[in-house]
Amino acid sequence: MPKANKAAKAAGKAAIAKPDKDQPVLRAIKGGKAPPAKTLSARPAAKAISSKPGAKPIPLKPVSAAFDDAPVIGLNLATAKLSPAMAAYFKKCQDKLGFVPNVLVAYAFDMTKLETFVAMYNDLMLGDSGLSKLEREMIAVAVSSLNRCYYCLTAHGAAVRQYSGNPLLGEHLVMNYRVARLNKRQRAMLDFAVKLTASPWNVEEGDRERLRRVGFTDREIWDISAVAGFFNMSNRVASATDMRPNTVYHAQAR
Amino acid sequence: MPKANKAAKAAGKAAIAKPDKDQPVLRAIKGGKAPPAKTLSARPAAKAISSKPGAKPIPLKPVSAAFDDAPVIGLNLATAKLSPAMAAYFKKCQDKLGFVPNVLVAYAFDMTKLETFVAMYNDLMLGDSGLSKLEREMIAVAVSSLNRCYYCLTAHGAAVRQYSGNPLLGEHLVMNYRVARLNKRQRAMLDFAVKLTASPWNVEEGDRERLRRVGFTDREIWDISAVAGFFNMSNRVASATDMRPNTVYHAQAR
Amino acid sequence: MPKANKAAKAAGKAAIAKPDKDQPVLRAIKGGKAPPAKTLSARPAAKAISSKPGAKPIPLKPVSAAFDDAPVIGLNLATAKLSPAMAAYFKKCQDKLGFVPNVLVAYAFDMTKLETFVAMYNDLMLGDSGLSKLEREMIAVAVSSLNRCYYCLTAHGAAVRQYSGNPLLGEHLVMNYRVARLNKRQRAMLDFAVKLTASPWNVEEGDRERLRRVGFTDREIWDISAVAGFFNMSNRVASATDMRPNTVYHAQAR
Amino acid sequence: MPKANKAAKAAGKAAIAKPDKDQPVLRAIKGGKAPPAKTLSARPAAKAISSKPGAKPIPLKPVSAAFDDAPVIGLNLATAKLSPAMAAYFKKCQDKLGFVPNVLVAYAFDMTKLETFVAMYNDLMLGDSGLSKLEREMIAVAVSSLNRCYYCLTAHGAAVRQYSGNPLLGEHLVMNYRVARLNKRQRAMLDFAVKLTASPWNVEEGDRERLRRVGFTDREIWDISAVAGFFNMSNRVASATDMRPNTVYHAQAR
Amino acid sequence: MPKANKAAKAAGKAAIAKPDKDQPVLRAIKGGKAPPAKTLSARPAAKAISSKPGAKPIPLKPVSAAFDDAPVIGLNLATAKLSPAMAAYFKKCQDKLGFVPNVLVAYAFDMTKLETFVAMYNDLMLGDSGLSKLEREMIAVAVSSLNRCYYCLTAHGAAVRQYSGNPLLGEHLVMNYRVARLNKRQRAMLDFAVKLTASPWNVEEGDRERLRRVGFTDREIWDISAVAGFFNMSNRVASATDMRPNTVYHAQAR
Amino acid sequence: MPKANKAAKAAGKAAIAKPDKDQPVLRAIKGGKAPPAKTLSARPAAKAISSKPGAKPIPLKPVSAAFDDAPVIGLNLATAKLSPAMAAYFKKCQDKLGFVPNVLVAYAFDMTKLETFVAMYNDLMLGDSGLSKLEREMIAVAVSSLNRCYYCLTAHGAAVRQYSGNPLLGEHLVMNYRVARLNKRQRAMLDFAVKLTASPWNVEEGDRERLRRVGFTDREIWDISAVAGFFNMSNRVASATDMRPNTVYHAQAR
Repeated sequence: MPKANKAAKAAGKAAIAKPDKDQPVLRAIKGGKAPPAKTLSARPAAKAISSKPGAKPIPLKPVSAAFDDAPVIGLNLATAKLSPAMAAYFKKCQDKLGFVPNVLVAYAFDMTKLETFVAMYNDLMLGDSGLSKLEREMIAVAVSSLNRCYYCLTAHGAAVRQYSGNPLLGEHLVMNYRVARLNKRQRAMLDFAVKLTASPWNVEEGDRERLRRVGFTDREIWDISAVAGFFNMSNRVASATDMRPNTVYHAQAR
Repeated sequence: MPKANKAAKAAGKAAIAKPDKDQPVLRAIKGGKAPPAKTLSARPAAKAISSKPGAKPIPLKPVSAAFDDAPVIGLNLATAKLSPAMAAYFKKCQDKLGFVPNVLVAYAFDMTKLETFVAMYNDLMLGDSGLSKLEREMIAVAVSSLNRCYYCLTAHGAAVRQYSGNPLLGEHLVMNYRVARLNKRQRAMLDFAVKLTASPWNVEEGDRERLRRVGFTDREIWDISAVAGFFNMSNRVASATDMRPNTVYHAQAR
Repeated sequence: MPKANKAAKAAGKAAIAKPDKDQPVLRAIKGGKAPPAKTLSARPAAKAISSKPGAKPIPLKPVSAAFDDAPVIGLNLATAKLSPAMAAYFKKCQDKLGFVPNVLVAYAFDMTKLETFVAMYNDLMLGDSGLSKLEREMIAVAVSSLNRCYYCLTAHGAAVRQYSGNPLLGEHLVMNYRVARLNKRQRAMLDFAVKLTASPWNVEEGDRERLRRVGFTDREIWDISAVAGFFNMSNRVASATDMRPNTVYHAQAR
Repeated sequence: MPKANKAAKAAGKAAIAKPDKDQPVLRAIKGGKAPPAKTLSARPAAKAISSKPGAKPIPLKPVSAAFDDAPVIGLNLATAKLSPAMAAYFKKCQDKLGFVPNVLVAYAFDMTKLETFVAMYNDLMLGDSGLSKLEREMIAVAVSSLNRCYYCLTAHGAAVRQYSGNPLLGEHLVMNYRVARLNKRQRAMLDFAVKLTASPWNVEEGDRERLRRVGFTDREIWDISAVAGFFNMSNRVASATDMRPNTVYHAQAR
Repeated sequence: MPKANKAAKAAGKAAIAKPDKDQPVLRAIKGGKAPPAKTLSARPAAKAISSKPGAKPIPLKPVSAAFDDAPVIGLNLATAKLSPAMAAYFKKCQDKLGFVPNVLVAYAFDMTKLETFVAMYNDLMLGDSGLSKLEREMIAVAVSSLNRCYYCLTAHGAAVRQYSGNPLLGEHLVMNYRVARLNKRQRAMLDFAVKLTASPWNVEEGDRERLRRVGFTDREIWDISAVAGFFNMSNRVASATDMRPNTVYHAQAR
Repeated sequence: MPKANKAAKAAGKAAIAKPDKDQPVLRAIKGGKAPPAKTLSARPAAKAISSKPGAKPIPLKPVSAAFDDAPVIGLNLATAKLSPAMAAYFKKCQDKLGFVPNVLVAYAFDMTKLETFVAMYNDLMLGDSGLSKLEREMIAVAVSSLNRCYYCLTAHGAAVRQYSGNPLLGEHLVMNYRVARLNKRQRAMLDFAVKLTASPWNVEEGDRERLRRVGFTDREIWDISAVAGFFNMSNRVASATDMRPNTVYHAQAR
């Protein structure tokens, strides 16, 4: 592994070790602090990312410069002025993650849309639930794999690698969740999410019963359904708009 | 039509007869005073619905008694105490629609989930957009038809009938949107939404170009995508939980 | 069931109770009497429908005037002179149903085709069988739902509503038969019909055994298969020719 | 090849060697006197088949003894007494084809069903049409290939080989009609029939226009649709009942 | 049947009776001898075929002249000079089968490709295995049926007819392997091969367990997988290049 | 690109620049030298890998110890004694790649199977062709993505990253090749390979014409087809046997 890479990974790992429960972000990890992306049509400028005085520059892999997926989306939308709440949120992402996830940049053409998306996302993925955060990310990736969503597979594949500390698990779920060595509970959870994605009309009481039999409560069944549903939405918004993930995800937690 | 049936329909029509164009509900926004549904596992009690002092009792179609789809969902979740905002919102639904849409009752086990759902729904379906409210409902139904979602086809099929004043259009979209006599713009819009639903991985720049060629702006392409995405989520939450629509929808605007 | 509803049903049953074996009708219910449609390319003229002296005019919903699906089919075929048997049959439809089902109008360009279609239809749907007429209509709708056939979903969805006296059941079968609350026998029957529609090559002895286990005789298995097969034919003739149902169906038995 | 086999084949060929072009059977029309098959659960008894006074016994291929697909169907149905018309029809089949097609034996448990099936079949496949008999058989095979129907592929694959005098064409259509060297008209015809089979809901005016552009009249479009529809029915009845073709078909016109 | 045809068939049958175990060919049967194809774009020249001194020329079926599928493939590739090994192999095919299978002619533009293909084929289909040669051919046909591969269905359908001595079995597997009367072992084998073909991502330990339960060893499971895999390759090379089988296959072992 | 990475890549390119025709490797890059895996049922022991005296130990990522996918396959097959050629080949892999690809370990239970696989693989992927090695790897990954093959996506995804020097390209092809920014030639190449994978029966002359129009020769069309075919085989052998890739691939060339 190249040195720079290792450093980045070390940083990332450290970050996960002390999650800040009170201030969820689209997956928060500590790290550099740079101002948010200024425009939708350009990837976050390299300079901006290391511009905060005294901040250790985020060790972006050089590759992100060379092979960037920019622009963020394939629609020509002017970014709006961030509301104070959203400006603070972007700042927080930058401080904790070292970057603002592109999906937020994509929604930033309209503050209501950005805020409702962020509110729903944070409740589903970071709020109280009988499902661990890792389990919710596992659902996200299994669903996104079926829908072949580049954005979500990249961003949430990285999340699975980080939360689990198991880089292979992320790859398994991206490629074919059936090859992952899962316990019965998690396998049943993903089987349900994937069936719900592929043919929602076929989901019936028997499917809910299978979840109950491996120990899920009805509230947790709701949560599995809601997370699977959410990524069926997000996958489609991302694919419809050709949304591109921040390149930094690709090398995270390998 | 049998007499009782006609009466029910007349009543239903009355409720719908004075739509407040600025304040549609679920389609419903602020105000209202009817108490919320008390439990998730029973359909809203008749008493609750007519409890408002001086309120004319909601004329539930007799059919809804005999053939009710209750309970609202197939999960055993205790309804939470409505937040003041949500209590007001339910009241408003009751006042304007004559009932609280079951999807709201279903989400009411958790105020954060209910509020984020309502916020996103109302922005997407009732907020500013280059798409008319009818067009957004048309997308909802075409998507829900592909996903064979009973709840959404029923509730939004009724909405298409109401907004369009064309009962056949609602049936066309429920059964097979290709039989509807649509103009090029609306056909392209539904083709995009349906492709995005069936195989989001196949949506590419050429598909966005087809929308632009019939006059959609990039912002409207976002809205088409977001509404189609939203119903891909809702269809799955509804199917996963066996959500049942209020029976009153079935006879609306026939 | 509301009284008026019951009366209607009784009437319908009566009509069916004394089937005129020589001249059965595509589902007979009492009503107005008007001459048959004169041409394929125009919907039955409103005047024609109320022309029988002394007859109470069929209360066509105004909607049928405004939103008609006419013409009956998308092929330019000249209607033939009705044979005496078919003239009598159309007359009977008009007398009992108040209209001639458009599928008959569609086939009326050729008397042999019309007669063989009518003969097979009436035997399958109205002849002796261990399956009730409602059950046969349920198969018709479940199959037509899989094939998304507008004509058959409309006409036979109405038939399910009428025969069952349960408007919701018709909607369930149109949208997704899995949401209907069916007994084991009827669920197995529809599961078989739907599998036979979706992947006939997969139907094997095990599938027939499943039907026998819920009580179907081999003769009834034939009938389930024959009805499912018939609608796989009719759905395709209707879709291939853009066949449009009489608008009157849409409001029946809601 | 075993001796008996050769004899059988020779005999079979003889029967086919003098096809009466005007009076094909199942392909068979009036006349004949051979008694019907006695039971459904056994293949037509050799005796029955040779019972016509003075008739040369039908030389059943020995292969049918060794590798017989009998019984005709997988349902236990008692054969009914043939009506005079059907007895004459079976006799005619026997005389002209040398055997009674198993599909007729299968339907013979009920005279109304047998007669309506025969009437519709003969009108569609042998009646007046702008489509040649070969073209109608080509549709039958292309549709049956998509539905992987053993009975119809066998019986109508043989018919294509016979009518066309081109044994390869039959194989092409059984296996994958796209490999056949067809002219534009016939390719368009089969493309339409196959699309109508695979996804009838997708057939629209553009598809009909494609047929018109290669010269089909609207009446011929009906016929293509009706034949394709018919085999979508027959394929399902055959698959649902495990119907087995007469073994003699396999070697015909190779 | 034309005289020449019968002779060819007789020759073919004789050949199968004494298989030369030590010198497998792409299914060897003794027979006529003609020179190999000179070019890819013409079917094997008649002269080549009669090159063995004193040999009676192979009586090509007249049909092959009239209805030939030639050229062998739809790509314009110049045949290469056969390596000594391949020249001997083609000679052997000619001597034993009476023809050189077109797939070999197709690969003969490049000796490395031809030799690696032949080596893999012969090991898989004719080498040591717990699966009989017939079972391997059954897998070949069931897989090719799912992929609708004209070349492989024709060549390997003939092989199943020959190896089994059951002409119907070949037809069953070509059309729909589920109609074949198979024992549990062979049915499980084909179910596995077909599932592996249709959705390889779904194959899991449970599927291997099902094979073990009917008696397959792990080595035999490898062989089933490898043969199924091989035909998923060959089917695609054949379809991609429009490869045409030797016409002689069609009439073999009927 | 980090220095270490560049060095590795340079080495890789060098290795590829002078292919050793007699002993090509499954993608050779210079590196450590360790003895081959000894058994099929255990992952290569860490000790073995660094056991060669004087060899620099392969810097296995610690993760590979913790999260290994071992054993190599889900079948219990005893590894055979390597033939001299294969022993030399494994040695070469170890020397150049630093490991023996697990697919070779999997095939090593039988020398004929191993040798024919290696011969075909090396000819197709490393032999002369108008397609670059990168293009062949791109086909491998696009096909494996459709088939969701964990082994091939991992091993060949790494190869695309290495050959292209573009880590994102590997991810694009793994997740959804349509998001990759490809030129017309490469897009047409992958469209063909993917269609050939998904529905080989639909590939026709028009598809070949599309390749010719972007500049592919008929020989190159063969190569595209053969590589796509090969991975349709390999994907299935891998999925059928639960084959697991060497963990070292996951971090290569990120």
